[in-house]
Amino acid sequence: MSLLVVGSVAFDDLETPAGRRKDILGGSASYFSLAASRLHPVQVVAVVGEDFGPDQDRVFAGRPIDLAGLVRKRGRSFHWRGEYGQDLNEAVTLETQLNVFADFHPQLPESYRRASCLFLGNIDPVLQMDVVRQMSARPRWVALDTMNFWIDGAREALVNVLKEVDILLINEAEARSLSGQRQLLNIYDAVRAMGPRILVVKRGEYGVALFTPEGHFLAPAFPLREVVDPTGAGDTFAGGFMGFLAAAEHTDLETLKRAALMGTVLASFTVEQFGTGALETLEDNALHGRLAALRELIRVAPR
Amino acid sequence: MSLLVVGSVAFDDLETPAGRRKDILGGSASYFSLAASRLHPVQVVAVVGEDFGPDQDRVFAGRPIDLAGLVRKRGRSFHWRGEYGQDLNEAVTLETQLNVFADFHPQLPESYRRASCLFLGNIDPVLQMDVVRQMSARPRWVALDTMNFWIDGAREALVNVLKEVDILLINEAEARSLSGQRQLLNIYDAVRAMGPRILVVKRGEYGVALFTPEGHFLAPAFPLREVVDPTGAGDTFAGGFMGFLAAAEHTDLETLKRAALMGTVLASFTVEQFGTGALETLEDNALHGRLAALRELIRVAPR
Repeated sequence: MSLLVVGSVAFDDLETPAGRRKDILGGSASYFSLAASRLHPVQVVAVVGEDFGPDQDRVFAGRPIDLAGLVRKRGRSFHWRGEYGQDLNEAVTLETQLNVFADFHPQLPESYRRASCLFLGNIDPVLQMDVVRQMSARPRWVALDTMNFWIDGAREALVNVLKEVDILLINEAEARSLSGQRQLLNIYDAVRAMGPRILVVKRGEYGVALFTPEGHFLAPAFPLREVVDPTGAGDTFAGGFMGFLAAAEHTDLETLKRAALMGTVLASFTVEQFGTGALETLEDNALHGRLAALRELIRVAPR
Repeated sequence: MSLLVVGSVAFDDLETPAGRRKDILGGSASYFSLAASRLHPVQVVAVVGEDFGPDQDRVFAGRPIDLAGLVRKRGRSFHWRGEYGQDLNEAVTLETQLNVFADFHPQLPESYRRASCLFLGNIDPVLQMDVVRQMSARPRWVALDTMNFWIDGAREALVNVLKEVDILLINEAEARSLSGQRQLLNIYDAVRAMGPRILVVKRGEYGVALFTPEGHFLAPAFPLREVVDPTGAGDTFAGGFMGFLAAAEHTDLETLKRAALMGTVLASFTVEQFGTGALETLEDNALHGRLAALRELIRVAPR
């Protein structure tokens, strides 16, 4: 079972209460593939510029991350500048330079077109649909992330691609905006009517809510003493979640719950350092220790 | 083991997106005692005015709620007028009339002074301390709720009474304000240093976080299709939580977890109707059905 992600590979300038960093590796496909590749091989479709060099290549090297679909173009990579206040839940975008991303048209290598598990990262829904159409067979699971920019500005295209989607991963505020509903159960009804049978609502420091036809699951975020940089938490979650599903080859409720816990724990490491730093150095011991701790934090003994 | 609550019995005027109500029964001691008395007898210390009549008496009648400590004075009862916007998480206070509550000095009946479980509802910490001093023996467990008004305006008195407290139940924003910390684990450290060994952080629609020397527990709120009136959710939670502990006669971690789930589910009923309406008519079947459903929503199968 192969896992394909289409998204952004970018450079970020970040300012958080813990400090600032300039020109560090970011983008949804970076966080996603670094997280997912701990669990299952990943194929990446994205575009970078000439500033993506050996230092960046090195981050992905030695991992089961296939970069055959990473297009290298003349010019600069996508660049995002953002900051977080004391309330780390929301980023303020200070500047977005699309650069080579501006005329990005994902072109899947032949070897990618039979992927059975496809993650459409948060990009223009027109491009997301374009990727779906390039697949030579309908993937077993198509998952999608999106944001208010597309919900508000490209709603028709988004609604169109959602018809092809099995699993929607989305922030809580954006789930409300997409569905016009406030309460999670009503959001899920609205989302199901649009196509996806599984809904994962990302609630930041409040964890995650998973809705499936089989049943639902609510899990907290892993409590941390310090959050350094929330950037990439959602994409890391998605990578852990999808990587777990691809490795398990199942989407029954119990597997989905474990996938959600895996995504939660991976994201907890991401936010403890700037950028992809934590994912680059994370050891299996630490990952499994925190997974066990999270399970214990939500466990109630049977009566 | 006897359970004693000191708090307010009030009349509320409420406006929420679901509608408005005038002069309905409210107050922390009302919600607390209606919730707790499903699990364990409760003794109430509060003050009401002449407007507290047979209609209000009837709400408490036929339940194991001892009103010997409910002082009836000339004048009007405490009156609160508040409203909630689409974001139901926070009430806006439009008017507070203290009335008979203005010179309330709790006076414990002799029969109350040996209570082994004491809940100090959200009132002036000077009065909370006064109640602690009237106990003829140190209760086995003293629990306390408070709010920003006292944290900001009566901090010294609050810090003083916290030294006598075993269990602090508090909203997340208020926990941050009290401790000067943002992250839950750091909040717990700060709270422990003030006295309480157990911390329960109430997170509204995001559930509850429980911290104990034995371990921690994070639980979501029960997902609802409609929230009609959030008033009293926290006091209902506290009533269910403390009633469960008083009935169980234990505060080990597993008992505390179950108490938190009981409080969570009782609060979920409270917010589905205005005022104390849901607690007045709640049937055991419905309560236990929802408890089982909540346990299922957080359960992960052992590996």
